[in-house]
Amino acid sequence: MSAYDIAPGVDAALAAFTLPEKLGFGAVTAPVMFSAEWEEGTWRRGILLPYGRIEVWPGSRVLQYAELVFEGLKAYKVGQSRANLFRAQDNCRRMQRSAERLAMPVVPETLFFQGIKAVTRACAPFIPARSGQSLYLRPFLYGTESGYLLRNSKSFRFMVIANPVESYATGAPTVAIERQEVRAAQGGIGTVKASANYAASLRASSRALARGHTVALWLDATEHRYIQELSGMNFFAVIDGELHTPELDGAILPGITRDSLLKLAPRLGYAVHERPMALDELLGQIGSGRCSELFACGTAAIVMPIGGLAEPDERTFRPAQTDQVAARLRTALLAVQERREPDPFGWVREVA
Amino acid sequence: MSAYDIAPGVDAALAAFTLPEKLGFGAVTAPVMFSAEWEEGTWRRGILLPYGRIEVWPGSRVLQYAELVFEGLKAYKVGQSRANLFRAQDNCRRMQRSAERLAMPVVPETLFFQGIKAVTRACAPFIPARSGQSLYLRPFLYGTESGYLLRNSKSFRFMVIANPVESYATGAPTVAIERQEVRAAQGGIGTVKASANYAASLRASSRALARGHTVALWLDATEHRYIQELSGMNFFAVIDGELHTPELDGAILPGITRDSLLKLAPRLGYAVHERPMALDELLGQIGSGRCSELFACGTAAIVMPIGGLAEPDERTFRPAQTDQVAARLRTALLAVQERREPDPFGWVREVA
Repeated sequence: MSAYDIAPGVDAALAAFTLPEKLGFGAVTAPVMFSAEWEEGTWRRGILLPYGRIEVWPGSRVLQYAELVFEGLKAYKVGQSRANLFRAQDNCRRMQRSAERLAMPVVPETLFFQGIKAVTRACAPFIPARSGQSLYLRPFLYGTESGYLLRNSKSFRFMVIANPVESYATGAPTVAIERQEVRAAQGGIGTVKASANYAASLRASSRALARGHTVALWLDATEHRYIQELSGMNFFAVIDGELHTPELDGAILPGITRDSLLKLAPRLGYAVHERPMALDELLGQIGSGRCSELFACGTAAIVMPIGGLAEPDERTFRPAQTDQVAARLRTALLAVQERREPDPFGWVREVA
Repeated sequence: MSAYDIAPGVDAALAAFTLPEKLGFGAVTAPVMFSAEWEEGTWRRGILLPYGRIEVWPGSRVLQYAELVFEGLKAYKVGQSRANLFRAQDNCRRMQRSAERLAMPVVPETLFFQGIKAVTRACAPFIPARSGQSLYLRPFLYGTESGYLLRNSKSFRFMVIANPVESYATGAPTVAIERQEVRAAQGGIGTVKASANYAASLRASSRALARGHTVALWLDATEHRYIQELSGMNFFAVIDGELHTPELDGAILPGITRDSLLKLAPRLGYAVHERPMALDELLGQIGSGRCSELFACGTAAIVMPIGGLAEPDERTFRPAQTDQVAARLRTALLAVQERREPDPFGWVREVA
């Protein structure tokens, strides 16, 4: 007997699904989703449902007070008979930290994996199998109770939705330096994956896109001097042939891809440095050639080369090379994720 | 012909509604709600609907990226045959500023008032009529598009829900000084009414409640030295018989009740000061007796006396008096809102 229920309509939804040729990132939605509700201190039995709209009260705290935390992770099935999750344990732990920061109930590890695996198993026949493709999983937890009193909900829902995705083929886009607005301050919620962090970055991100850049690069809230991260990706620079990334300063999201690169890079011969990175110093190092390359990383793009950093007045600082070190790291990481190379850190787990 | 549609079921929902004796604040929901959708640069025709759950895509930006801004305002019908809105024009303008800060489409003034008035008119027969009671209106705007790309939605929905409410009878609760966590930083979104601001304050607010206080008192993000606001209310102190409130520092919400008090108080003989207010200086002034009273203000509570400020170690600084100046201001403001006194600033507008 399964530990969760399967709603009527799931088989039909799965049978009706055909994987399109063009996947993009988030454009195609898997035909099933997982849901489990929390009330009075207890998680109820979960259920696998056909994918579809969900009902919320208009005055619910998830809407009115952004009481939602989420995760993003991938299941790979490239040259394998079964799906393989990458560092899902770390996503589970981070989602627990996110929930704690917002004083929401924690999703237990067993429930987290039940949801992830239920969706992954049901979708296994159509997890795309070309290198770089995967099933992107988006678990999230939100407060369902209506009410204006400033406190947490007394009822919650944990869900997992999924998307068959292809690898981001982005070229090497430029990034817009954001010198005015602030994404996250120390003492705030920047270190956890809460929907609220993204609201603060929407205007700068939309403006960056409108100006022809891919996204905004954020600086620290106090001095507007130190690099934090891109909206949704961590930042790396290659300086004198070594890797530098902003240290976790209490406002940056501790990315799992970031951590994976910090562990993999030394095996490829790159020294790594986590330190406060002053933007203006870095711009000088791009000018002098000491900084030879920039890239960003995250679950979606894995490793994304950056073509240059654009000031608000469009002066753009372009490093001499793009996608050299980045490509080596992406290839090495993807080889572990797709189980083409040994997995020295025990990051990959087959879904039975 | 009405400028908006009326859904089947609205008449039945209105006919079935009975106003309960006990209203609380948000516990009773009005039986109708207003909705209008935005797509491709155009607002579609609005509709009045029976109150009920709304459908959202699980991957929608309102959920995943907290793409939601809202307002709160009241319609009074105390001793009047028709409902009267208080400073609704200011709520409309603030909602437009909120939308701009998140790069969302602005709700035009005509649509904002169409929604507010449609709900107010339909609910007019049961707007509670005892002094301090009112119909609380909650307009909100959110992004409905699914997708993980960090930019705004391409489709939006404007809604108005409402609650018959009674006056907060809170006594003079204590407030928990929050010395670690941060609600909003300059350059962030604290100055607008976005759901995301409340997510950041949930843990501190829930902790404050658990410790027996009503809510948290926030300090500035940089130095943790200057008073900002309570989660959801602005802060005032009576010092040497004059009113002091933190100046709008680029992180505080410019409350409409705050502004109303700053304008009304001089007519009652109180000098008013907007200035940076260092917390430790204020605690000293409470100790010496120079600060005689504290209170908070907002649309919900109007003017809420504060019994004292509690440090994390529970040392509590209690001013010598509570609800003296606060009561005078509340009475004066409510008299304008309920049209028992002249309205020198043109704040009140009858809903025809």
